[in-house]
Amino acid sequence: MSKLDEVQKWVSEQHLDLAYISDFESIHYLTGFGSDPIERVLALFVFPDHEPFLFAPALEVEAIKDTGWNHPVYGYLDHEKPFTLIAEHIKQINPNPVKWGIEKDNLTVDRFELIRGQFPDATFTSDLTPLIQQLRLIKTNDEIAKLDAAGREADYAFEVGFKAIQAGKSEADVAAELEYALKKRGVMNMSFDTLIQAGAHAAEPHGATGATKIQNNELILFDLGTVHEGYISDASRTVALGALNDKQADIYKVCLEAQLTAQAAAKPGITAASLDKIARDIITKAGYGEYFIHRLGHGMGMGEHEFPSIMEGNNMVLQEGMCFSIEPGIYIPEVAGVRIEDCVHITKDGCKPFTHTSKELQYM
Amino acid sequence: MSKLDEVQKWVSEQHLDLAYISDFESIHYLTGFGSDPIERVLALFVFPDHEPFLFAPALEVEAIKDTGWNHPVYGYLDHEKPFTLIAEHIKQINPNPVKWGIEKDNLTVDRFELIRGQFPDATFTSDLTPLIQQLRLIKTNDEIAKLDAAGREADYAFEVGFKAIQAGKSEADVAAELEYALKKRGVMNMSFDTLIQAGAHAAEPHGATGATKIQNNELILFDLGTVHEGYISDASRTVALGALNDKQADIYKVCLEAQLTAQAAAKPGITAASLDKIARDIITKAGYGEYFIHRLGHGMGMGEHEFPSIMEGNNMVLQEGMCFSIEPGIYIPEVAGVRIEDCVHITKDGCKPFTHTSKELQYM
Repeated sequence: MSKLDEVQKWVSEQHLDLAYISDFESIHYLTGFGSDPIERVLALFVFPDHEPFLFAPALEVEAIKDTGWNHPVYGYLDHEKPFTLIAEHIKQINPNPVKWGIEKDNLTVDRFELIRGQFPDATFTSDLTPLIQQLRLIKTNDEIAKLDAAGREADYAFEVGFKAIQAGKSEADVAAELEYALKKRGVMNMSFDTLIQAGAHAAEPHGATGATKIQNNELILFDLGTVHEGYISDASRTVALGALNDKQADIYKVCLEAQLTAQAAAKPGITAASLDKIARDIITKAGYGEYFIHRLGHGMGMGEHEFPSIMEGNNMVLQEGMCFSIEPGIYIPEVAGVRIEDCVHITKDGCKPFTHTSKELQYM
Repeated sequence: MSKLDEVQKWVSEQHLDLAYISDFESIHYLTGFGSDPIERVLALFVFPDHEPFLFAPALEVEAIKDTGWNHPVYGYLDHEKPFTLIAEHIKQINPNPVKWGIEKDNLTVDRFELIRGQFPDATFTSDLTPLIQQLRLIKTNDEIAKLDAAGREADYAFEVGFKAIQAGKSEADVAAELEYALKKRGVMNMSFDTLIQAGAHAAEPHGATGATKIQNNELILFDLGTVHEGYISDASRTVALGALNDKQADIYKVCLEAQLTAQAAAKPGITAASLDKIARDIITKAGYGEYFIHRLGHGMGMGEHEFPSIMEGNNMVLQEGMCFSIEPGIYIPEVAGVRIEDCVHITKDGCKPFTHTSKELQYM
C-alpha cells in the first residue's frame, strides 16, 4: 500500500469527507513532488471514494507531471484566488464536504479561515499531523538507502573539510572549500547552513560559520549535511589542530563516551527519554551537565525536525526503522565547544549510523 | 519611533490586551534578532502598557541578549511545555488577557489551539499580519543601505559566474565556483539556491541547477542572491555562449525591452498591476505572451516574499521606499528560457536598482 493509499484509508476510517494536506514536506513525502511554494499555495486533497488531486502554482504543474503524478493537478496563476478555485474543484467531487482533516501543525490561521469561509458547514476536528508523523516515523528500505547515500556525502564533506583546516584560515574559508568540492561532485544542496566553529566560538551552539580564524591548539567543530533525492544527512565532528590542553581533551573524551554509549544502547525497546538520559548521565557525572543544553537528538529523514525527539519526557519506545540523531555536546563559554553526532536508523537489534567518519579524536 | 514602538502603539489603539508575534522574520524585523527556530517556539509578546518580552529556546537566549535586546527574554528547554510557560509569563502581566492580536498568515492552527486552551476567554479577531506587512513595505534608509550592499554582492557573483562559463562545464560547476568565490569574500549565505540553467533547461522556470552541460550557441540563465545583515539581493541575468540564432536573440531582445520599459516606468503613483501590464503587453505584442507565466515581480527586503506583489489585480499604488523585483521571463519549452531581473527601490521620482550588472546581451 502506497503512503498516499494509507492516508486515503485513514480518511475513510475516520469517516471524513476529505483531507487537506498543506505542508510541502508532507506533499513531497506522499507524492514524490518536492518544492517549497513559499507564499504560494500547494495543496493535496484526499477523498475517501474519489481520486486525490493536487493544486499548485501554474509554473509547477509541468514539474509535478514529470514526477509521475497520475491524478489531476490544477494550476493557478498569481492573480487568481487560490481558495476560490480550490473550493470549485472540491465541490465538483463533493458539493458540501463537512468533516475535514487538516494538518494542524502546518495550516495557518488565515488559510484555515479562507477554507471555513468557502465551506461554512465544515468542521475541522481531525488533525492529520499525527498520522503523517506516524507514517514518516518508520522509514522504508528505500528511504534508508537514500539516507545512507546522503550520509556518504557527509563523510566526503568531512574528508575535504578536515584537509582544508589550517591555522590562519577562517571558518568561512573551510566551509567554502568543502561546499565547492561537494558541488563539483554534483551535491547541490546542503541540508542546512554548514557550521564550522573554531575554539571558543564553538561554545555558541547556535552560532554561525564566520570570519573567526582557526588557531593552533584548538578544537574545531563541524556540523553539516547534504540532501540526496529529498533525504538529508546531518552529522557533527570535532577535531583538534595541534596539541590540546587537559580541559579540551577531557571534554572531548566525555562527549565521545556519551555519544558512543548512547549509540550502543539505541535499539528497539528502549525509550527516547532513556537514551537521552544515558548520554546525559555520563556528561553530568563528569561535571559538565550544565554545559549540555539541548536534547540528545532529533528525528530526521526528509528534514531534521521529524520524530522521534530524543529527550527527557518523551517515552516513545524506539522501533526498527526509526531514524534520529545522537548528538551530545559540551559547550563551555569562552573556552571550547564539542559536539559529536551521527544519525542512525534502528535495526532489528541495534542501530546503524548513516555516517562513518571516525569519532576518535583526530589531530590535524 | 522604533518599529517595535509602532506595534505597541497599534496594540494600544486597537484596545488589545496583547499581540503575539510568531513569525521569526517579523521578530527579526522588530527586534534585530534573526533565527529560524524550526519546530521550536520563538515568540514576541507586546502589551499596551507594559514592556514586551521574548520567549525562545534556551540555547538562543545568549544570542538574543547579544543583539542588544534590553527587555526580558525567557528561555525554555526542549522537554518543557512552551505554551504553559508562555501563559505563566503573560499572566504575571495580565491575569486574563481577552483581546489578542495574532499573525494569521503565520500562526498555525495547533499553536492557536494551545493558546486558546490556556486562555479560554480570549478572542483572536485582530490580525497583525497587515500591520507588519505595512511596516515592512516601506523601507528605511538603513534598510536600503543593506539592500544596496547585498546587491553589490550579487553583482560580484555575476562577474565570477560569467567568467566561469565554458562549454562542457555543468551548471553545477559554475554554481560551485561562484559560491566559492563569495564565501571566500565572507558572503556566507545565498538568499535562495543559486539557479544556473543552460539552453532548453532554462525553459523550466522552477527547475534546479544540475548536471546539464553548458554548450556553445546557448543562452544561460543565472538567478541568484545573497544575504547581507539580514537583507537579501535577488537578480537574474541571461547571457550567451557563442553566437545565437534569430529565435534566441529575439526572445532576449523582447524580454530586455519589457524589463527596461517597466523599470523606467516604476515610480510613485503607478499601480503594481499597471507595471505588470507594461511589461506583459510588450511580451504579448511580440507573440510570447503565453510563455511569460509568472507575475512581473515580488516585494523583497528581509525575504523575497514581501509586498508589493507586482501582478494583475494588485491595485496598490507604488510609493517611495517600496522594494520589489522587475523580472519578466520568456520560457519556450524545448528551446530556451530568458529572465532578466533587477530588484529596485522606489525613489521620489523613479526607482533605483540594487544590482548594476549590464543587461545588454553579453556574449561569453
